[in-house]
Amino acid sequence: MSSTSIRITSAEVIDLRVPTSDQLLGSDPFHKAPDYSSAVLHLETDAGLRGVSVVFTVGAGTDWICHGINDLCQLIVGATLEDFSVAPRRLYQRLIDHHQLRWLHDGVFRMAAGAVLNAFWDLWAKSLDKPLWKLLVDLEPEFVADCIDWRNISDALTRDEAVAMLKQRRPGMTERENKLANLGPKAYCTAGWLGLSDDEILQTIRKLQKQGFDSFKLKVGRDSNQDVRRIGFMREAIGPECNLMVDANQFWGLIEAKLHVERYRPFGLKWIEEPIARDDVLGYVELAETFADADFGFACGEHAASPVIFKQLLKSKAIKYCQIDAVRVAGVNDVMAIILMAAKHGVPVCPHGGGIGLCNMIQHFGMWDQIAVAGHSETQLIEYIDFLQEAVEHPVQVRDGCYVAPTAPGWGLEFLPEFIEQHRYPDGDVWKSRPPEKKGTLFEATTIRELPHPL
Amino acid sequence: MSSTSIRITSAEVIDLRVPTSDQLLGSDPFHKAPDYSSAVLHLETDAGLRGVSVVFTVGAGTDWICHGINDLCQLIVGATLEDFSVAPRRLYQRLIDHHQLRWLHDGVFRMAAGAVLNAFWDLWAKSLDKPLWKLLVDLEPEFVADCIDWRNISDALTRDEAVAMLKQRRPGMTERENKLANLGPKAYCTAGWLGLSDDEILQTIRKLQKQGFDSFKLKVGRDSNQDVRRIGFMREAIGPECNLMVDANQFWGLIEAKLHVERYRPFGLKWIEEPIARDDVLGYVELAETFADADFGFACGEHAASPVIFKQLLKSKAIKYCQIDAVRVAGVNDVMAIILMAAKHGVPVCPHGGGIGLCNMIQHFGMWDQIAVAGHSETQLIEYIDFLQEAVEHPVQVRDGCYVAPTAPGWGLEFLPEFIEQHRYPDGDVWKSRPPEKKGTLFEATTIRELPHPL
Repeated sequence: MSSTSIRITSAEVIDLRVPTSDQLLGSDPFHKAPDYSSAVLHLETDAGLRGVSVVFTVGAGTDWICHGINDLCQLIVGATLEDFSVAPRRLYQRLIDHHQLRWLHDGVFRMAAGAVLNAFWDLWAKSLDKPLWKLLVDLEPEFVADCIDWRNISDALTRDEAVAMLKQRRPGMTERENKLANLGPKAYCTAGWLGLSDDEILQTIRKLQKQGFDSFKLKVGRDSNQDVRRIGFMREAIGPECNLMVDANQFWGLIEAKLHVERYRPFGLKWIEEPIARDDVLGYVELAETFADADFGFACGEHAASPVIFKQLLKSKAIKYCQIDAVRVAGVNDVMAIILMAAKHGVPVCPHGGGIGLCNMIQHFGMWDQIAVAGHSETQLIEYIDFLQEAVEHPVQVRDGCYVAPTAPGWGLEFLPEFIEQHRYPDGDVWKSRPPEKKGTLFEATTIRELPHPL
Repeated sequence: MSSTSIRITSAEVIDLRVPTSDQLLGSDPFHKAPDYSSAVLHLETDAGLRGVSVVFTVGAGTDWICHGINDLCQLIVGATLEDFSVAPRRLYQRLIDHHQLRWLHDGVFRMAAGAVLNAFWDLWAKSLDKPLWKLLVDLEPEFVADCIDWRNISDALTRDEAVAMLKQRRPGMTERENKLANLGPKAYCTAGWLGLSDDEILQTIRKLQKQGFDSFKLKVGRDSNQDVRRIGFMREAIGPECNLMVDANQFWGLIEAKLHVERYRPFGLKWIEEPIARDDVLGYVELAETFADADFGFACGEHAASPVIFKQLLKSKAIKYCQIDAVRVAGVNDVMAIILMAAKHGVPVCPHGGGIGLCNMIQHFGMWDQIAVAGHSETQLIEYIDFLQEAVEHPVQVRDGCYVAPTAPGWGLEFLPEFIEQHRYPDGDVWKSRPPEKKGTLFEATTIRELPHPL
């Protein structure tokens, strides 16, 4: 199908919320009771194809992002797919550099812009009947480079360096593609959620091991003694050869982080994830220097708001693992820039998964990175969580501890209509039947204030 | 009036937009045609007092912030002023650390939270019949420290250090207060707007000199030769003794910035403002090292999204001037933290003014800093622009190149009802009568894409 003949006729933005707080799924020290949610964008066309994207959230605030996406969609309804696909940076800059909206910065604005961009990428891949990763793999190096806004990152990677790097990876690309199309990128999983008992953690590990996993994560942050004990417990449960990672979800300040992390030295950890605030670049530099001789490195990125933050973390060698997120930054264009910068600095791309739809999206970036950018699969691990896969037509799959390469066109992120109907906020059945105290947009049952923290 | 007896009965959020793009007021390389705007929050009470705050924007996107403020106001309608004033950090954390909303990050979310906090601070000061600065000056050091979230900044300044510093400044405070209550903080002004001819710049300088100004700013960024010529022109016009600053509004990448700034060495500039992206901390560190022997220092902060970014800029000595903004971060609480960190690191606080209401607000922070935190007025300059003062009951005033200390209670930010009626978007008279192409929420007449830039 030619992209010139596909025109956006309308945009629908859906506030989709799942009351996961009932089971405390995915809780961490800050996000104690998340209701996994998404602002879902459907770009309808006159060709019968639909461009889909999501912005994952944890409940309240989804409406803020929906409001923003709706506003941005004014700019694109009536446009053709070709308006986008001929030069995807044009739409990127029309949104991100909009002379008035740019005042809104990162956060809601950048995520909303990402939703629009990602829906166009989805549509483009569908028009070619390719999964997103395959569209990316097939792009010419110069075209990839032209998707990117180089203004603020050229000191870490120039356009020419990016093109040269992509060209250099060409040999062996088909072979890598065939290999990964059979058994996709290697995955890891969280086994040690905050709320789980030792027994439950052990059961989770054993179940995951049967699925072929050898890399496991544990949530830490609140009680140092208990954390150290649990790290020891997990290390014993998985043995010395498996990968063990811990995640503090930004709960500590820098000084606290050093005290906690110092006690983690003996356990052969692979990484410490988000020990401090998402944008504390110099804090990460200081941690990396302090623990330069430790086994572990530091990991972050799922909450890094823009390529400028990633640039600094990578250029300074503060992080050893680059945890891209699929919906925090401005879509495929920003993620391309980040993956390219990571490759130049030799930092493995280990994307952040979970939520609603994140795993479905990051698997494509993992494929592209390992086939065309890093050009190998030796060091990367991609987060895998099976939450809420019942919501979509093409659930992510794992085999032998690896993602099964997605084959559906685009992101493969088609929601089941009945799931949307049930979970649409606030009028879906699930929400209409909730007790009033759990219905509000600003459900406050548990907040960080209740946690012990030395302030 | 006792704060226990004052209860919030309702909240009104107003989308206020002024079509300043017609005159290109306040334009810069990125924001080519701003419509100066504000999300205005009115907290109504049963005591007849109104808590007022604004979030300044440049047009499109004001509705995004209004949406957010409206959502947050659910949490506060029905609360008493005392619920806030007994411990202002409680509301701060209830908003910023809300276990679901915090996913939205900085930008829209933090600005909306700031609006709510700032309206409470306004109300509190009004209940005591004090201007905001006087309320802050009269707070006990321990109370100030307890307004602040120390989690992510303690490595730059601890609570104890802050308290000790505030106590150390106590001697001479009354004297400084009396002095500044007579003639307030020293101001500076932009004379070299992008669109102005040499003649117009010269006229502006002469007019400002008659008002007592000796510190002037020039916009740069687009054409290096023209910029250098204009800097020379302005230096000649004001003579060697006056302060001259330039502002690039984040237009350059790091490599470009070095090339431009290198040519600025001969002109005895005081500061280079926003040469690079707002959050490129390591870029600022590199610039500071590269130009360590130059006369000028670097300045930024009006677009720094949180105290974590300021912490890094200050701790690393990357900036020599700390340009706080009154509405970009989460209200008085965040600004207190930033001013205290600046004082510890010996960096003068030179707040960002302009827009709608910013000058009206920053004068209070300048007063507090110079009376109670830095404890002197030797190095600070506070931005002054007289734009849109016809909108408010108590316009900012300057005398002898200084702000006249505000005396109205609270921020003194009461809008004239007829100004609101005329400029309310989209139904105010000013907007109803606009031509259709200038009416849209996403007015795109000029965008950054039209500018020549090596990408």
